[in-house]
Amino acid sequence: MSGEDAPAHQQNAVDQKQETKPTEEPKTEPPKTESPPAAAAEAAATPAATTEKVPEEETFTYRALVLTGYGGYDKVKLQVKKGKPTLKAGEVLVRVKACGLNFADLMARQGLYDRLPSPPVTPGMECSGVVEAVGEEVTDRKVGDKVMVLNRFGLWQEVAVAPANHTFLIPEGMSFEEAAALPVNYITAYMMLFDFGNLRPNQSVLVHAAAGGVGIAATQLCKTVKDVTVFGTASASKHETITQGGVTHAIDYRTKDYVEEVRKISPKGMDIILDPLGGSDTHKAYNLLKPMGKLITYGAANMLAGQKKNLLAVAKNWYHQFSIHTLSLIQGNKSVCGFHLGYLDGETELITEAMNTILDFYKDGKIKPRIDSTWHLEQVGDAMRKMQERNNIGKVILTTEPMPEEEKKEETKKEDKKEDKKKEDKKKDDKKKDDAKKEEKKDDKKDDKKKEEPKKEEKKEEEKKEEPKKEEK
Amino acid sequence: MSGEDAPAHQQNAVDQKQETKPTEEPKTEPPKTESPPAAAAEAAATPAATTEKVPEEETFTYRALVLTGYGGYDKVKLQVKKGKPTLKAGEVLVRVKACGLNFADLMARQGLYDRLPSPPVTPGMECSGVVEAVGEEVTDRKVGDKVMVLNRFGLWQEVAVAPANHTFLIPEGMSFEEAAALPVNYITAYMMLFDFGNLRPNQSVLVHAAAGGVGIAATQLCKTVKDVTVFGTASASKHETITQGGVTHAIDYRTKDYVEEVRKISPKGMDIILDPLGGSDTHKAYNLLKPMGKLITYGAANMLAGQKKNLLAVAKNWYHQFSIHTLSLIQGNKSVCGFHLGYLDGETELITEAMNTILDFYKDGKIKPRIDSTWHLEQVGDAMRKMQERNNIGKVILTTEPMPEEEKKEETKKEDKKEDKKKEDKKKDDKKKDDAKKEEKKDDKKDDKKKEEPKKEEKKEEEKKEEPKKEEK
Repeated sequence: MSGEDAPAHQQNAVDQKQETKPTEEPKTEPPKTESPPAAAAEAAATPAATTEKVPEEETFTYRALVLTGYGGYDKVKLQVKKGKPTLKAGEVLVRVKACGLNFADLMARQGLYDRLPSPPVTPGMECSGVVEAVGEEVTDRKVGDKVMVLNRFGLWQEVAVAPANHTFLIPEGMSFEEAAALPVNYITAYMMLFDFGNLRPNQSVLVHAAAGGVGIAATQLCKTVKDVTVFGTASASKHETITQGGVTHAIDYRTKDYVEEVRKISPKGMDIILDPLGGSDTHKAYNLLKPMGKLITYGAANMLAGQKKNLLAVAKNWYHQFSIHTLSLIQGNKSVCGFHLGYLDGETELITEAMNTILDFYKDGKIKPRIDSTWHLEQVGDAMRKMQERNNIGKVILTTEPMPEEEKKEETKKEDKKEDKKKEDKKKDDKKKDDAKKEEKKDDKKDDKKKEEPKKEEKKEEEKKEEPKKEEK
Repeated sequence: MSGEDAPAHQQNAVDQKQETKPTEEPKTEPPKTESPPAAAAEAAATPAATTEKVPEEETFTYRALVLTGYGGYDKVKLQVKKGKPTLKAGEVLVRVKACGLNFADLMARQGLYDRLPSPPVTPGMECSGVVEAVGEEVTDRKVGDKVMVLNRFGLWQEVAVAPANHTFLIPEGMSFEEAAALPVNYITAYMMLFDFGNLRPNQSVLVHAAAGGVGIAATQLCKTVKDVTVFGTASASKHETITQGGVTHAIDYRTKDYVEEVRKISPKGMDIILDPLGGSDTHKAYNLLKPMGKLITYGAANMLAGQKKNLLAVAKNWYHQFSIHTLSLIQGNKSVCGFHLGYLDGETELITEAMNTILDFYKDGKIKPRIDSTWHLEQVGDAMRKMQERNNIGKVILTTEPMPEEEKKEETKKEDKKEDKKKEDKKKDDKKKDDAKKEEKKDDKKDDKKKEEPKKEEKKEEEKKEEPKKEEK
């Protein structure tokens, strides 16, 4: 897959708050303190802006987000890559306008998603943009086409390469943000509901994290079928929005037992349950199915507790992982399905079929991606945080638009504060451990040892786990 | 359910080869050797044939098959019941013409099916016949309607009671045999393929036991969808028939590895697999699924090895029972479903919906039940044997038509021979065990001790297990 070529052009990491200046040779040690002039950033985004004598392949630069190692939000750095990517037959080069954030990206950052190659690597499963070049044998895409792209990884950068059949033409009237918000969430929701779920009129669907990207897509898709009742979980502050979006019964899982709430309204249970949570919630979902009901599990959000890999949460999720015997399935007349788009990347035909139907729905005004917020590439850490802490309603988007200078200064201030906080934390750490530097690279071990740290911190982590557990995806 | 009332009218068991004479009072010890006159049997089948002065409720008699205890074929006895069943509101009385045999009936005889109440009880999940009386509140059925009936049990008798909404009008041109062959197999195949399976054009389906009742129904239903490829397993002698019936690739599982054969033709695997086998075959099926593939398991035929409960086979099946983790489902994008119509008896709406579509297919000439053979009630043992030893192609049917005298004599001779063989076997047994009589009632224990019996016999059992294992259901 094309994304695999990208890392070859990578430079070493630079701090997220900084831009490197475009240079002729890849820098091995970019300046750590110097603030980049706005003009340089502009130049990086516009390949034609450099001198004419040097071949474009060498002067061509673009900004890319790079996961430099597993860990917290700061592990995704903004770097400048150099050299125009070459295209293989069947591939297209896309000037990226917007990128979608997905839960898998958060998992990947923690080292919990095996479809992303080892760092350093550019994450990103979906984006929108304009075709800038086409490889040989590409007949159905041309330079200038507005497209959305779906790829295993490698799309969080200003210029991305993908097989032409991983791109879909953006329909009239759809913004780049919407186009970047659409592929992963809507294909996921569509295939779960209409392939595994076989959704039909009059049925009932439980949508967990109904204010998340998949949740909103699933709700809209449910409404394309007559008289479908949607039960959606979300925290109370989001109920108004999701109810307007099509959720029939909004349930605040933070203050109420969602199983009880569902049973009150639908004593026999649900026809379809979409489960992004994993662990013990999958058990609950299974028991909440009607005869001929389908449980579709598509994630393990319960595994994500905190910014870095939380071994306790992972172990807990693993321990509670749902395992089902066929005899129980037979006697219950039930179906248990697993879905993850990231593992379907060879199935172009299936995906294209789904996408065509989804785009028809869009053209008919039946679906419309809901953008929660749009962030500059420099802000990827905050964007990820918003999603991970379940503060979003709808899709979190990255834009490749250059960041205005004043915002950048703001960011720098914020980053500096964060940096100060980090340094403080580190000092504390250093008091306890002499080998702190070593551990920075070995996140697993670090997480283990974290348990020995001050109780206050541990308690905070504990709270974090409890609170936003079942929110948006 | 109505069937639960039936046992109240039951008499004690009589030998399968014999008819009891109609009497005024229930016999507690019916004659064991006396051969019944044909006239008596006739009278039993025709309620009006007795004197006029005694109220019908008392003189009304009918023949019924009764499972008298768990064990071999001889545990199902033909008895005469007395007294016209009373109808509750919503129920109908059906004069039964033909009954269908199902795998669940074979499991039930061995005590392996928990939807049948404890013996003595009349088995039978489906039949066809004519409505003879309707209870209060029945508006959509009238006396004289030709119907097929689906019930949890209690239909292998000349007169059966069932809720009216468990009956379906027999369409023009459908014989009683066809009507008795249709409900269980076609509803099972339909719901597996079109509800859980979500079968669509161009897909591939693996049908195990393709010459069995469900197998033939599934094949025909697959052909109602455009360009579906059916892979069917059956022994070679049945290939011509199933190929004519719609199987695209017939596979002789006795001489070839069906997994290899499927992979040769379809390297990516199957979209849908119907698995009546259980145990290790469910594992194979799971691995043979394409992404977005659905495995639908609906039985544990591998558990049935020999006439009586085989604890080794049951244990083996249990040990190999498929258990699946959600993580594997997610990474494989797979679905595992369990189906058994016997556990769906509350779901009248779902079943009626399926049945209506099936009857439309019948009327359009798209499906037609294939009758393997029709047997008299007296021959139920042979009928069960034919099915259990997988010698059938299509449905095994019981008819309530009285058995002609000459056939009856033949049966008696055969039965006598069987009886002799049984006595011989028993003598052998008696040499080894003094408490044989006690054990007759305790089949579980008996099966355990069987392992200690002569090796020759054990080997024979072993062969039996290996050979017809994956044949028809």
